[in-house]
Formats: sequence, structure tokens, C-alpha cells
Amino acid sequence: MSPDSASKDRASLTQMANAVRALSMDAVQAANSGHPGMPMGMADVAAVLWSQFLKFDPAAPDWHDRDRFVLSAGHGSMLIYSLLHLSGYAQPTMDDIRNFRKLGSPCAGHPENFLLDGVECTTGPLGQGLAMAVGMAMAERHLNAQFGDDLVDHKTWTIAGDGCLMEGINHEAIGLAGHLKLGRLNVLWDDNSITIDGAADLSTSENIRGRYEATGWHTVECDGHNFDDIARALAEAEADDRPSLVACRTVIGRGAPTKQGTSATHGAPLGDEEIAGAREALGWDAAPFNIPKEVLADWRATGEAGAKEHGEWEARFLNHDQRSEFERRMKGDLPETVFGSNYFAGLYVEPKKVATRVASQMALEEINPRVPETFGGSADLTGSNNTKTAGMEPFTADAYGERYGYYGIREFGMAAAMNGMALHGGVIPYGGTFMVFTDYARGAIRLSALQQARVIYVMTHDSIGLGEDGPTHQPVEHLQSLRAMPNLLVMRPADVIETGECWEIALKSKDRPSILALSRQGLPQLRLKDAGENLSAKGAYRLKSAEADKRVVLIASGSEVSLAIDCAKELEAAGIGADVVSMVSTELFDEQSDEYRSDVLPADNVLRVSIEAGTTFGWERYTGLDGINIGIDRFGASAPAGDLFEKFGFTVDAIVPQIMNKIKA
Amino acid sequence: MSPDSASKDRASLTQMANAVRALSMDAVQAANSGHPGMPMGMADVAAVLWSQFLKFDPAAPDWHDRDRFVLSAGHGSMLIYSLLHLSGYAQPTMDDIRNFRKLGSPCAGHPENFLLDGVECTTGPLGQGLAMAVGMAMAERHLNAQFGDDLVDHKTWTIAGDGCLMEGINHEAIGLAGHLKLGRLNVLWDDNSITIDGAADLSTSENIRGRYEATGWHTVECDGHNFDDIARALAEAEADDRPSLVACRTVIGRGAPTKQGTSATHGAPLGDEEIAGAREALGWDAAPFNIPKEVLADWRATGEAGAKEHGEWEARFLNHDQRSEFERRMKGDLPETVFGSNYFAGLYVEPKKVATRVASQMALEEINPRVPETFGGSADLTGSNNTKTAGMEPFTADAYGERYGYYGIREFGMAAAMNGMALHGGVIPYGGTFMVFTDYARGAIRLSALQQARVIYVMTHDSIGLGEDGPTHQPVEHLQSLRAMPNLLVMRPADVIETGECWEIALKSKDRPSILALSRQGLPQLRLKDAGENLSAKGAYRLKSAEADKRVVLIASGSEVSLAIDCAKELEAAGIGADVVSMVSTELFDEQSDEYRSDVLPADNVLRVSIEAGTTFGWERYTGLDGINIGIDRFGASAPAGDLFEKFGFTVDAIVPQIMNKIKA
Repeated sequence: MSPDSASKDRASLTQMANAVRALSMDAVQAANSGHPGMPMGMADVAAVLWSQFLKFDPAAPDWHDRDRFVLSAGHGSMLIYSLLHLSGYAQPTMDDIRNFRKLGSPCAGHPENFLLDGVECTTGPLGQGLAMAVGMAMAERHLNAQFGDDLVDHKTWTIAGDGCLMEGINHEAIGLAGHLKLGRLNVLWDDNSITIDGAADLSTSENIRGRYEATGWHTVECDGHNFDDIARALAEAEADDRPSLVACRTVIGRGAPTKQGTSATHGAPLGDEEIAGAREALGWDAAPFNIPKEVLADWRATGEAGAKEHGEWEARFLNHDQRSEFERRMKGDLPETVFGSNYFAGLYVEPKKVATRVASQMALEEINPRVPETFGGSADLTGSNNTKTAGMEPFTADAYGERYGYYGIREFGMAAAMNGMALHGGVIPYGGTFMVFTDYARGAIRLSALQQARVIYVMTHDSIGLGEDGPTHQPVEHLQSLRAMPNLLVMRPADVIETGECWEIALKSKDRPSILALSRQGLPQLRLKDAGENLSAKGAYRLKSAEADKRVVLIASGSEVSLAIDCAKELEAAGIGADVVSMVSTELFDEQSDEYRSDVLPADNVLRVSIEAGTTFGWERYTGLDGINIGIDRFGASAPAGDLFEKFGFTVDAIVPQIMNKIKA
Repeated sequence: MSPDSASKDRASLTQMANAVRALSMDAVQAANSGHPGMPMGMADVAAVLWSQFLKFDPAAPDWHDRDRFVLSAGHGSMLIYSLLHLSGYAQPTMDDIRNFRKLGSPCAGHPENFLLDGVECTTGPLGQGLAMAVGMAMAERHLNAQFGDDLVDHKTWTIAGDGCLMEGINHEAIGLAGHLKLGRLNVLWDDNSITIDGAADLSTSENIRGRYEATGWHTVECDGHNFDDIARALAEAEADDRPSLVACRTVIGRGAPTKQGTSATHGAPLGDEEIAGAREALGWDAAPFNIPKEVLADWRATGEAGAKEHGEWEARFLNHDQRSEFERRMKGDLPETVFGSNYFAGLYVEPKKVATRVASQMALEEINPRVPETFGGSADLTGSNNTKTAGMEPFTADAYGERYGYYGIREFGMAAAMNGMALHGGVIPYGGTFMVFTDYARGAIRLSALQQARVIYVMTHDSIGLGEDGPTHQPVEHLQSLRAMPNLLVMRPADVIETGECWEIALKSKDRPSILALSRQGLPQLRLKDAGENLSAKGAYRLKSAEADKRVVLIASGSEVSLAIDCAKELEAAGIGADVVSMVSTELFDEQSDEYRSDVLPADNVLRVSIEAGTTFGWERYTGLDGINIGIDRFGASAPAGDLFEKFGFTVDAIVPQIMNKIKA
């Protein structure tokens, strides 16, 4: 580049960055709410990234080989809305930006992947964007290993703030990325020394580059307001084969004459006067929501290189011998068969008593060879979660084509990485830990649900049936607290058949995550003949019909269904007819017709009894207030499982008399 | 020490450590469940720590100035049970150890603070022990600054495994400790290179000492099986004024002839044959659960120095001019007055419309000057959580006597540190973040509840009323998912009066944590005259009685109570009598008498309607199945709060017709 063109470029970049600043401060002001400081501080870095590094085609936001860009510091959402609009994406329009943070605008307070193309994932809960970027980078290397450079060869860029770097998930995510040598992942740290409460040194005094380097990362720093220096640092990051942290020294709210460099710019409108002063300081004359033609033209040009690369990619893709398989995986369509034709049939011939975690592994032994896009793993509980099937090998820096992730003791990091993989596409991630540790991963589970990501959580040891490890490891409130979450499919199968059915449902649920709640302990097979359909898909179904006059419906889930069957037998022996309903998934059941639901759970003249080794809270929805709720409304204890079930009243002898008494009364 | 006595000491320490190994492998074998590897690997380090460094008096486990010892790697529980028994604590007895992991034994699978003196906190969920130790070390420095060396001058020691160091909370905890220069905190890392899934390098390749050093820690390493080297490293750790990480290179399962050094020793009994081999290799002849007299005598001697120090401390304590105040705080008793006598009276004279988060600050302005043991803070949302009151200054390395913690963007770390402070005693910690980020801290909130710790969570922005920040920041399922947790008091006050009442309840709840769910938006004062009692303490109460013939009971919480009042007015205007019940806390309400509950929520001939801007899941407990549940069973959206309440049906116009229709039908 000649000195002349370089200085012209610098002038152009300055105005391009100022366009981002102006849109950001004006939109926040119009909304009277939002975060101008970050977009104004990182505008220069973003201008360099988009014009010189990021591979994207605004006309094809879902081009599979685009670079992924994640705004981990999601509160700075006006940055990405500005970038998408200016560089020529169909959305957001300038009207969308004018309506920033208003009902119906795709320019939500934080970027939402389901509202705008170009927003790769929903961010805002700090640290998770970076952790999802790790997952995207994993998926990229994995698919690259399987399909080659011609189809998959892109980078993942993320902008992260001090908050992202302080959150614990940062540690888990970068530990994973460093270990896996994800060299195509670059984190641009908005190093502005400011947090909401004030100077960052109020709460931290860490050498961040030192920490990243200790974790296997390459680090480099730059003046975040010097275009050449930014470009140098990004080029260095790109070139290094380790994941890179680029510390971009910036001034938060850059351009705001009296507020820049302070937390006052972080999360509130600047005010009309400050904005006028910023316009002057920046040399930006255009009216709010107006972008001068030449600046817009410069921005529109940033997509040209990517569009050209996209064209070349399409040409390769059209003639590629793996084209249809690649397309299928990226669309998220399943192969035609998921289970072998004899799998369920074999179980009806020869029933199996196994823990549902083992049943889950049996299902996976069927699925994994047939569905090459599954990517398994566990947060250091492989043997307990039964997540690794025959022939699966560790996904490592030397073997990106393999399909098993040893995530280490990083539940939250695993869940967030799985979100990133699912959102990247081409991969169906599943991963395991103990059910109780959904608490550690809950922030990411919520983002799976909100983002409509097909992530499958294999959560074993799902009750006091875990036994000796005691209350810290025994879920009590977890099933209900997860069922309370929107768009999350919680499934608790009762036996080997239902477990297979649940896996089928989970795989077919393209737009929501699933949690499989699985037992540690062995459970008898309760379904002994082929129903000709996936009964679990109805959420709940009548597993056993009353023989005597129907007086009771026992509603149970998972390991308690066989107990319900035993209770029913005793009730029938006393002349009391009892249905047993297996409640595999309350969410799926709630979605059934009124007719179906009232057939399975009749309201009149029948006592409804719920039996689940978890809190009773919430079961009244299915039993009414005149039913009985058998559960455990306290923390568990340490003892062999059998002793605990007895102690907490999960026995025929403890339950049946309560039912008899209630019927008599 | 002469060479002779040193070598005698080494021989003695060897047998002392072998006693721990023997008890651990034998107890795990008897239970047929447990984790022998860690206690066997760390036995040598523990023997040095207990005999030469730890300040404790087995006869007085609750001596306030004892060193705190936290087994963060809680699965190695047989280590602490062995240490407590051998060194002469009244419990556990040898019978307790024989019954390890059996129902009723205080030797639970993981150490439980409520079962045994000497177990400072419940551990097992990895990383949290270390993070609680940070809180304990904070409390120690804080109380030291307030009461001086004569009363408070102890250290905090913790043993952590690779799992503790991989969990995200590790990053938050050590960031806080490094920043606060907690030099009296020493972490002994069981550096055995093994995790459950196998070699630690399956999932990590981090330079852990480098990471700790980057975070402001002193680090040192030692051969964890060389007593002199261990003692050297611990002495160095003690001497350094930064928090210290001592990397103890150990062999997991040390002594097990064929399994040591492998993950096979981590979480399963060794088996009779391997145990016999270990006895031989260790030169340990004693029968299971028998400790040779001289070995026991050596162990018993480890408490002598501490007992002497305790005696000296008691002498100082008896004559100390701050004795009664120190004792009061350590007992956890409150001062006589918590609110000024005019606080509530003033509000009845001059009612206030304020957000309940502001009401919470108003309450704290009363409380903090009167209750000097409160210790406030926020995870970088001080201005939003309204947690800092007049005159509160930052708790920093230069000002340990101050009472406000800037925890940074570390919700989980904050919550765990608060657990540590509460368990240390002498401090009542409260801390804030947005309600939605209870998800990030949930693992520690559960440990607050399980450990019966008085921690007060100030969770603001408790619904879609948060507005523009959108669904990532809007709690929907959180209230119910927290109410589902045992022993956790979730309180959602409706106005400034109830908020004060809730603070009073939280402070008085010595044995359980509280969550205050507080609004971002202003709420009218609904309680306009003095009831002469804390009505919120009943959980729910009738705020407004039906004027016309009672047909409806509206049950609402927090910001929806004033909406319920408005609905009731419209119903009354149509001749339909409507009670309004403020449901401040379902937990407290569930604890009331049947009589009270059925008076407040009558079952017959009355339509019960719940109104809460959260999921409807669980509300059937209070409305029955023939009631109406007004709520939001999907994720929120980004818009001004008023628009969202309208969109999601939280208006008189949307609610009253549903009630009218139901009554007609």
C-alpha cells in the first residue's frame, strides 16, 4: 500500500468508525436506553476487522464458510447493528435502528440470533459469547477435518469486554481453546479499564495477557485507536497457530468530549449536549441516522472481497463430491435411519433391565454410527454418563476429525461450547454431567433454549437414587426448575424403550434443546410390546390401565414408574383400579390436545397421585389440589440408594396406605 | 531440630500418614463406595499441615480464632474424617468411620458442615470450597481490622484438586483473592495429573502456576511425599504476603501397589487384594479401623500447640474491651434495633412510590449503621442493585475494615465468598446482581441453602419490568425455579413497607439464606397503615378484603400486587367482591397453619387467580386447577417495560375479562 493510499485509507476508516459511533450514540439516545460506550470505543477496531479481515458476504449471511463474528460483550449491540446495516445486510434497516430497543425491532437491547441474520448467537450474559465462539471454532475444525479446506476454512472472531474476561466461564472456555489449539479463534479484548462500577481496578488486578499465555494462548496488544497498529495486531493473531487474544487498548465512549474514558458512557444515553459535543470532536456533521454517501460506499465495499470468495466457494461446492452430505448436515436434517431396524424389536423379544444411563449408551451405539454429525462428550464423567460409544476417539488438536470431547471439569464451558457448535451448524452436540450440575451450566442451558439450539444434555444420576455421594450430588429441585424454563425439553424416561424414544425426539427437535434425565440405578423394562409409535412423544401416556373400577391414576416419571406399577398392583389386589401414566415430559404433554390430556389424566372421580423422587412443587398441575404428591421437599442424604428410597417414603408400603386413606376419606 | 529428631519425626509422620491411608481405603472398601485416591495421595501433606502448621484445638472446634481448613476436593472426604478422628475431635468416632456413607453416619459421602464440627463447609461441588475459603479469608481480615490481632488472627487452608482448579469459579475466586491480597489464604493443590476420565492432559494443558501468578498469587511447589519439602513449601506460603498456591506433586492412591497413579483409585474401592498389597507396601500391619497406640499418640499431639494457643486466646478474650460485641457477632445475634423507630411510621405518614430495589436501599440505610456486621456488595451492578449505603467504603487490601465488596463481574464467586463469610461467622453478607444471573450463581445459592448459611441475595430487575435489555436479562422461570429449592427463602415484596419487612425477616433467618426479588420500576406504597406486626412474615396475607360478595381472590407478588389491586377495583365496580392477597413468600406461607392458609386462600366458591410476571408453572398449588394463572410462559422481549406488560397481558383490560368470563361460566 502506498503512503498516499494508506493515509486516504486512514481518513476513510476514521469516518467509517465515526459512522458506527454516530449511529450508536444516536440510537441509544432515541431509545433513551442502551450502551454507547463500547461501540464508540471499539469502532476503530471493528472498522479494521470488517474491512480487512472478516470474511463475509452481506448478500448471503448464511454462507456456510463465512467467518463467525461474535459480539461477546453483547450490551454493545449497537456495534453489530451498525456493522450489519452499514456493510449492506438486508437487515437491520435504518428504521430498525431508529427503533432500537423498541417492541418489534430486530435491534433488541442485546443481539438475538433469532432476530437478525449476521448475529451468530445471542449474547449479553457475559462470557458466554466467547465460550460459544470456542464451540464454533471447534465445529469449524471438526468439519474441516471431515470435509476439507475447499468447503470449510473460516475463522471465528469475537469481541469481549472486561466483564467477559472476569466471568468464570472465561477460564473454562480459554482452557478448552488453549488445550485444543484453536488457532483460528481470535478474541479482541476491549481493554478500556472500565466496568459498570467504575475503574476495573476496583475489582481486579490481574495480568490478563499473562493468564492467557499460561493457558496456551498467543497474545498481542495494540492501540485500539490506531488503524495501522490494529491491523498489525490482527494480522499477527491470524498468523499464529494458537488461539489469540488481542488486547485492544481503547477509550470507552471515544469521542464523547466530557464522558469518554469513564463508566458514565457504559450503560446510559450520553445526552443531547454531549452528543453535540461528540459530533464536533469527531468532525461528524451528518444528522442522526444519516450516513454520508461516500462513507456508506466505503462500508459497502467491505463486503466485496467476501462476496468474491463466496462466489469461488459456491463453484467448488457445486462440484464437490461430498456436497450432498455437507448440505444435509449444515441444514440440520437427519439421515433416514437413526436406529437399526432391529433395535427396539430386539428389546421386545429380550427385555433388558438397565439403568437409563446405560440405555442411553445403548441408544447412542445405534445412533452414532448412523448419524455422523453427533459430537459426544462429558465434563469428566465419561464412565458415569455413558456418553462414549464404541470406536469414538478423543477430539484433540491432533485429531479434529474425531467426535468425542473430553471437556474436563468444565460443565458451563461444555454447555456453552455445545451451543456454539449447534449454532455453527453441521454438528449435533451432546454432552454429559451429573443432573445436579445443571446448576453449574444453567446460564448456558438457558441460552440453548432462548437460541433454539439443538443441544442434547445427558444428565445422569437424576435423583437420590445416586446414593452415597449425598445431598451435594443428589438433585431434588432440578427437574422442576428445568421444566419451568421455556423452550427446554426435559425428558425423564422410565426404561430402555423410553430412553431410545427420547433420543429420537431429542435428535428430531431442531429448534429446542433437550435434557435427558437418566438414572444411575438399574430399571426394569416396562414396555414389553411394540406400540407402533413413539409413545414418549406424547409427553405422557397410559402405560398400564386399571383392571378394577378406575379410582386412581398414578403419574410417575423415570425411576419411579416401576414403583408406580408396583403400587398399582397392590391397589388392584385391594379392588382399587389404578392407571399408571408415565410422564416422560411435561412440556410435550402440555402440548397435546385437551382431549388427549383429559383422557390420560381424567379430572372426575379419580384420585391423581404423582410420584417423582424430586420436589413436589409444580405437580399440582397434574394432580389438582385434591390429589397426592409423593416427592422429596428437602435435601437428600448420604446412604445407599435403597436406604434412601425407603427413608424418603418411595416404597409401596409407604405410598399405598396414603392412597387407601384418601380414597376412604 | 536435630538430625535425629528430624528422622524420628519423619518416621512418625510416615506412620501418621499411613494411618490416614489405611482408614481411607478401609472405610471406602467397607462402604463399597467412595474415593480413596485423594486421601491416600494427600496424606503426607495433610500430616505436615496438621502437625506443624494448622492452628486448631480438637476440644474446641468452634474456637473463633482457629485456622479454617477447607477440603475443597470434597470427594476425598475420608481425609478429613481421618484427620478429625485421629487428632482427637469428639466426632467422628471410629464407629462413625466404619459407617462411612451409610444412613445416619456423620461421615457422609461428601463433608457436610451441618453434620460434623471441624467441617467448616460443605464441599463436593468442585471449586466452591476454594471459593468459600476466599470468603473466610475475607471475613478474617475484616474482623481482624475491626477487633485486632488479639481476637482475630488466623489463616485459611484449603486442599484443592485439579477439578477445583478447572472449574470457572476458580478463576473468579482467585481473581478476588489476588486482588484483595489475601495473604493468609493458602491453597494446597493436589497436583496428581489425574482426573476421573484419565490423565489430566486429556482436557487441560495449562500452566497453572503461571496462571495463579498472573492473578497476583505467590506460588511454590513441593514433592508431596517428602515431609521436609512439604514443610519448606508451606512455610514459604505462610511467609508470603500474597495468597499462596502450593503445588504438591503427589501420586494419587499412593501406596496401592498396582493402581496408584491412575484414575482407578479416584472414585472406587481398591478391592481386598489391592488393599492387602497396600498394607504390605506401606508397612502397615494394623487391622482395619485399628490405629496403633503410638501412632494415635502422635496424632493426638498435633492438637497440643493449638490447645495452648486457645488457652492464651481465651485469657485475652476474657479481658478484651470488645468482648461482648465480638461474641454477639460471632454468635450471629442481631443488635436490639435494626430499623430506626420512625422508619415505618414515617412511611405511613408520607407514603413513598419507589422501586423495591430503592426501597431495599432505604432499608439498608437504616440497617447498616445499626448492624455493623453487615457486609454489602455487588457483582459490578452497585448503582442498579442499590446495595451501597451512605458512608460505605470499598473493602480493599488497604482497607479491610470497610464493609463494601466490589466483587467485579463474578456472580458465582461473590455468592460462594458470601457463603464463606457467613460460615466463618461474625459477618452477615449481602450481595446483589440481576435476578436473571442467579443462574450464574445457582451452584452457590444451593450451597447457601444446604449449609444453612445466612446469606442475603439482593436480586434486582426481577421480571420483564427490566424492559429494554431484553430476554437475556429478563427473568421468567427464576422465581419458581428458586422457590423449588429447599431451605431457601425467596421473598418478593410489593412495596416499600414489605421490602423493609423482608429485610427484617432475612436478617433474623439465622439458618437459611434469603433471596430478595426486587423491581427495577417504581411501585406505589400499598400498605398505608401500621398493622402492628410484620405481615410479610406470614408469607402471604390479605392486603385488601372484598367489599361486594367475595367471588374472587387475586394472589399476586411484587410488582403485580398493585395491578391486582387495580383489577379488584374494576371487579368490585362490577359487583364482584375480590380479595387481594400479597404472596411475599410461598415458603413462609406454606409454613403457616392450615387454618390461616385456608382463611387467606379459601377453596370453596371462590375463583383464585394468580398474577405474577413469571412462569405460571407451580402456581396451581395456590389456585387449584379451576383457577386462573396469569403469567408469562415464554421468553421476554426487548422494549420499554410498559409496552412489555401490555404485550404479555399484564393489564387490567387483559385480566379482568378473563375473570368475568370464568365466573359467568
